[in-house]
Amino acid sequence: MVKGRPPKILFLSVIVMSLMPLASPEDAAKLPLMPMPAKVQTGAGKFLIDKSFAIAVRGPAESRLEQAVERFRASVVRRTGILGQLDTDGLGNFVITCAGQGEKIQRLAEDESYHLEVASGEVHLDAPNPLGVIHGLQTFLQLIRSEPEGFFVPTVVIEDAPRFPWRGLLIDVSRHFMPVDVIKRQLDGMEAVKLNVVHWHLSDDQGFRVESKKFPKLQKLGSDGQYYTQEQIKDVIAYARDRGIRIMPEFDVPGHTTSWLAAYPDLGSERGPHTISRHFGVHDAVMDPTRDHTYHFLDDFIGEMSRLFPDEYFHIGGDEVNGKLWEANRKIRQFKRRHHFKNGRDLQSYFNQRLQKIVKSHGKVMVGWDEILHGNLPQDVVVQSWRGQQSLADAARQGYRGLLSHGYYLDLMQPASQHYSIDPLGNGAALLSSEEKRRILGGEACMWAEFVTPENIDARIWPRAGAIAERLWSPQEIVDLDSMYSRLQSLSNELNLMGLMHRVSYTRMLERFAGKNDVFPLLSLADAVEPVKGYTRARSRAYETTTPLNRFVDAVPPESDAARAFAGLVQKVVNQQATPAEIASIRDHLSAWIDNDSKVEPFLEQSLLLKEMVPVSQNLKAVAQIGLDALDYLSTNMHPPAGWKQQQLDMLKQAQQPQAELLDVIAPSVQKLVEAAREESGDPVIG
Amino acid sequence: MVKGRPPKILFLSVIVMSLMPLASPEDAAKLPLMPMPAKVQTGAGKFLIDKSFAIAVRGPAESRLEQAVERFRASVVRRTGILGQLDTDGLGNFVITCAGQGEKIQRLAEDESYHLEVASGEVHLDAPNPLGVIHGLQTFLQLIRSEPEGFFVPTVVIEDAPRFPWRGLLIDVSRHFMPVDVIKRQLDGMEAVKLNVVHWHLSDDQGFRVESKKFPKLQKLGSDGQYYTQEQIKDVIAYARDRGIRIMPEFDVPGHTTSWLAAYPDLGSERGPHTISRHFGVHDAVMDPTRDHTYHFLDDFIGEMSRLFPDEYFHIGGDEVNGKLWEANRKIRQFKRRHHFKNGRDLQSYFNQRLQKIVKSHGKVMVGWDEILHGNLPQDVVVQSWRGQQSLADAARQGYRGLLSHGYYLDLMQPASQHYSIDPLGNGAALLSSEEKRRILGGEACMWAEFVTPENIDARIWPRAGAIAERLWSPQEIVDLDSMYSRLQSLSNELNLMGLMHRVSYTRMLERFAGKNDVFPLLSLADAVEPVKGYTRARSRAYETTTPLNRFVDAVPPESDAARAFAGLVQKVVNQQATPAEIASIRDHLSAWIDNDSKVEPFLEQSLLLKEMVPVSQNLKAVAQIGLDALDYLSTNMHPPAGWKQQQLDMLKQAQQPQAELLDVIAPSVQKLVEAAREESGDPVIG
Repeated sequence: MVKGRPPKILFLSVIVMSLMPLASPEDAAKLPLMPMPAKVQTGAGKFLIDKSFAIAVRGPAESRLEQAVERFRASVVRRTGILGQLDTDGLGNFVITCAGQGEKIQRLAEDESYHLEVASGEVHLDAPNPLGVIHGLQTFLQLIRSEPEGFFVPTVVIEDAPRFPWRGLLIDVSRHFMPVDVIKRQLDGMEAVKLNVVHWHLSDDQGFRVESKKFPKLQKLGSDGQYYTQEQIKDVIAYARDRGIRIMPEFDVPGHTTSWLAAYPDLGSERGPHTISRHFGVHDAVMDPTRDHTYHFLDDFIGEMSRLFPDEYFHIGGDEVNGKLWEANRKIRQFKRRHHFKNGRDLQSYFNQRLQKIVKSHGKVMVGWDEILHGNLPQDVVVQSWRGQQSLADAARQGYRGLLSHGYYLDLMQPASQHYSIDPLGNGAALLSSEEKRRILGGEACMWAEFVTPENIDARIWPRAGAIAERLWSPQEIVDLDSMYSRLQSLSNELNLMGLMHRVSYTRMLERFAGKNDVFPLLSLADAVEPVKGYTRARSRAYETTTPLNRFVDAVPPESDAARAFAGLVQKVVNQQATPAEIASIRDHLSAWIDNDSKVEPFLEQSLLLKEMVPVSQNLKAVAQIGLDALDYLSTNMHPPAGWKQQQLDMLKQAQQPQAELLDVIAPSVQKLVEAAREESGDPVIG
Repeated sequence: MVKGRPPKILFLSVIVMSLMPLASPEDAAKLPLMPMPAKVQTGAGKFLIDKSFAIAVRGPAESRLEQAVERFRASVVRRTGILGQLDTDGLGNFVITCAGQGEKIQRLAEDESYHLEVASGEVHLDAPNPLGVIHGLQTFLQLIRSEPEGFFVPTVVIEDAPRFPWRGLLIDVSRHFMPVDVIKRQLDGMEAVKLNVVHWHLSDDQGFRVESKKFPKLQKLGSDGQYYTQEQIKDVIAYARDRGIRIMPEFDVPGHTTSWLAAYPDLGSERGPHTISRHFGVHDAVMDPTRDHTYHFLDDFIGEMSRLFPDEYFHIGGDEVNGKLWEANRKIRQFKRRHHFKNGRDLQSYFNQRLQKIVKSHGKVMVGWDEILHGNLPQDVVVQSWRGQQSLADAARQGYRGLLSHGYYLDLMQPASQHYSIDPLGNGAALLSSEEKRRILGGEACMWAEFVTPENIDARIWPRAGAIAERLWSPQEIVDLDSMYSRLQSLSNELNLMGLMHRVSYTRMLERFAGKNDVFPLLSLADAVEPVKGYTRARSRAYETTTPLNRFVDAVPPESDAARAFAGLVQKVVNQQATPAEIASIRDHLSAWIDNDSKVEPFLEQSLLLKEMVPVSQNLKAVAQIGLDALDYLSTNMHPPAGWKQQQLDMLKQAQQPQAELLDVIAPSVQKLVEAAREESGDPVIG
């Protein structure tokens, strides 16, 4: 309640709103919000942001709240030029009421709800604690529009709370190190889409990235000098907390530990010396789980890190142990026999049980990847599934809480729609009891870093992570892809203006390729291709951590907006619903791609880095030509000669093979055009 | 010398180079180098950067050298995709020979020379210490080009050393605070153009920006929470050192101290309480120079800061003391009488003398602005002139060393050419004896921050600071403006690709204005205007530190490349040297600006932030129309009616008045076209 006003005022404003002419529910889906709130009721009025804009904050003295309001003011002023006054007398027209303090250390399942009511005269944002305020302010920012009379937000009543309490983004900083400013940028983006956990993958075979004061060789010998100091870690944690984001560290053991062993070879299952790995994939290096020394070390280390990272959850990895070196070590074999362990999994289970006690003794809850489920672990352990909803469901049935990451791997270059379609309670998990379902805490988008650098990581994460954020925040039934993509586009614009680098880095990389040449033909070519999907790239060359990631494939976004729009047009043709203007637009696109080849080829030839793009451009030209031919057959009463169709389809199949680690993403649409063409004479199919 | 090779090899390669066909001297001026090296001898060959690219470093084990080579490798690989091998056996084809270590703390006048010899088979970079290596690597990077056979550098022999040992950039972080990452970006840019001093203006009326452990109220009460921790300061100093850059702090006393007095009112000349100032301009607030307490405080404070900042020089400001509060204070008046001080300047001189002893007692050399020259100060003091070359010359005659900043104020929005024309040894200083001239150490570009934010500071500094860097590094006789601008353009491209934000922020700000509209009409409008010059803007409104700087004027670059190009074309017309194509190009430009108004006006009207641009766009349209008319009269045998000319000139005069704090920079060129038109009949003047 606002100081100096009777409570009924707020109540009245609710009534007033509900008497206002309300727009149809479709309008809510058109609001540029991501994630879409749980409940949105739109009105017909607008709240003007003008000189009278004044923010009144009622709530506990908590710096997080002050900071959030300050950032909000800065965002509003940057966009509108209007500096909201901060009214300490509680009489502003933007009234924030925060009922209480948040937890000293942000907790899983802490209430994140908020109520945002935008009326034409004033705005009320109510939340039980600062987390809801942080979320509500982001919602309001996404609603700001510009019109002749000024900046405004449409009237709306929003009742919002997340569907899942754990909405994470894993950032791997081992395969390629990411400086603090890169991490902070991702935190800015996460705040915008209400993601609330950074899962910081801090160690792996290729590098150990945190300063340890107890075991300084870890960073001295395990990081190539690329690590975070403890001061930097604290700084990032404080930055995240201010944005309603928890930071959970992951120190992956007992596998994925080559960089540890480079520093402390006596932890390993084979005699050293070891060096930091430069290559990718599953490594043999593994800790020796049979020696007490290993556990003493981990106890000391986890103790230190538990003090550094205040979050209640501590991720120990536990994935992809192949056990080869355990088999190769006589003492370890003896140990296994002595303990009647049938295989490496049993031995790892023994390791996990001892590790869990250590983690718990430092006041933390252990989190690990699927593999840790083998054997007996206490039920407070959290399992993160990279293998699928089924393994998540199995864990839930066994009483374990779980997180879904399968389907959310951003490094696999899948379209946003694909991530969006994956529901943590879908497939295998759909049949769980409601109690079991509650054990599924949410999920995490994963940015594994074999193929990302500080230069292109923003473009690999954003905007696609917004679609995953929505899946984890919004009601399960919100699934419309057109709405999602339209709002994702708005989000992408917002993120760009906030300072995220997904667009800027892309343009800069193309400018670097172009040199003194016009960059537009390169942009046009880039529109028609996407990086190869899944693990194709890892298999296509001997990539190492030092391999330059500055090729065309490293610049091109994971998902081509132009190709998606083109596919939409083609689908209309196939459905015989295309207007003449839409058919003309397809023709224009195809012609432009054909013409582009001669514009771009001279300077593709000029650069060692771009030479590999010559056949890609030629391929695009050929594909576009097939498309034009097909369109001709479709829109006239001419029909192709016998065999033409099969010949084109063969060519298109060939054209869809990866080239320069890129896929021609126009070819599938052209294929549809060819398939739609008739081989016998008759009336035009379209037009 | 390279390990395993006799010294004569290097000698031989010099001979080989000098036997090669050399291009004419003009070619050197066309190399995209900034600053232009002291001596450049071009060859006709090229050094290919291919898979055999291997860097051999011969020199002392100094981390600065290793870091520089690592950064160099990263730059090369980012651009070319070729990861230079680091060959520890000294057998690379890119041989760096660093004769010795640098000073533990980089010193003024430390040797910065280098010798870079690019032959077709190998490159030799020789320097007496790591500073020269750092500079030479930057020179090499600027020379990389792309051609069909790959990336290469043209063969060249460069003998280079700076003209002045002190080449600085002042960054004011008091009026608007600049986070560490912003400072680091500027350091990256400085390295590229061989600037070697950051003059960090850390305190002023509007904010005290460094953590003091001795006097923590300084940051607690004097900074609004916006300050650098000592850890951050150390981090920035290390970052600068790695790039061959010294960091000199400035703590401006006894004036410009409102923020100090907000924390420690007993230092002041009037009773407090004081609060951090929000406005700009000369303030009355001043320390009390009559109390011993003031000196004890400064002794402790300077002691702490002297340990934090290792540089030998320590700037105490000393500017713009108006003495009003000294006059208003009875005790201070009495003190002045007792000491027979005639005025405030005498009293400040007393203060400076005591201060200088304190600064010296902490092992530092005192630097101050012009004003400190009054009275007797030891001759090791360095004077920085903001008032002109004459006061610099006066100081030199009196035996003081000096720095020029007059003419180098980046905040005044002058074109690069104007800064470029200012020589520290020009005007008043030209008549100095050679011994006196040696006392002029160089100069500093100054980025005062009343009108800059972290968002637009890059665009205010770059690329113009490159022209000042060249003035301070390159031989005095290098003055050609066409060459300078052409190379400045290359530099700007390079800085963009390096990650400087001058272009990106500009585009982003325009995108923010444009919202969902096409940004191109805004870009076209922006091309034709520049921010008002000098101190016009400060006088045009009551600006405060909290005033939003997010208007069109805050986005537009200080200097319009398009307007300069247009002026060049018009000059050709006036000189009757324009080709028909050039005349057509002028016509196209003018027509485009006329057409642009109707494209841009609908969405200028739509936004509260852009409304002020409606008359600016209309003005541009009117100016362009006059230009078209004049061009018609110039290129046909028609002549304008009587009075037309004067009428147009009157309109153009009006059109050159500031509007929305912007200047129409097309109007001066159009004025030339009008002036060239004849009012009597006759043959066409042109075409």
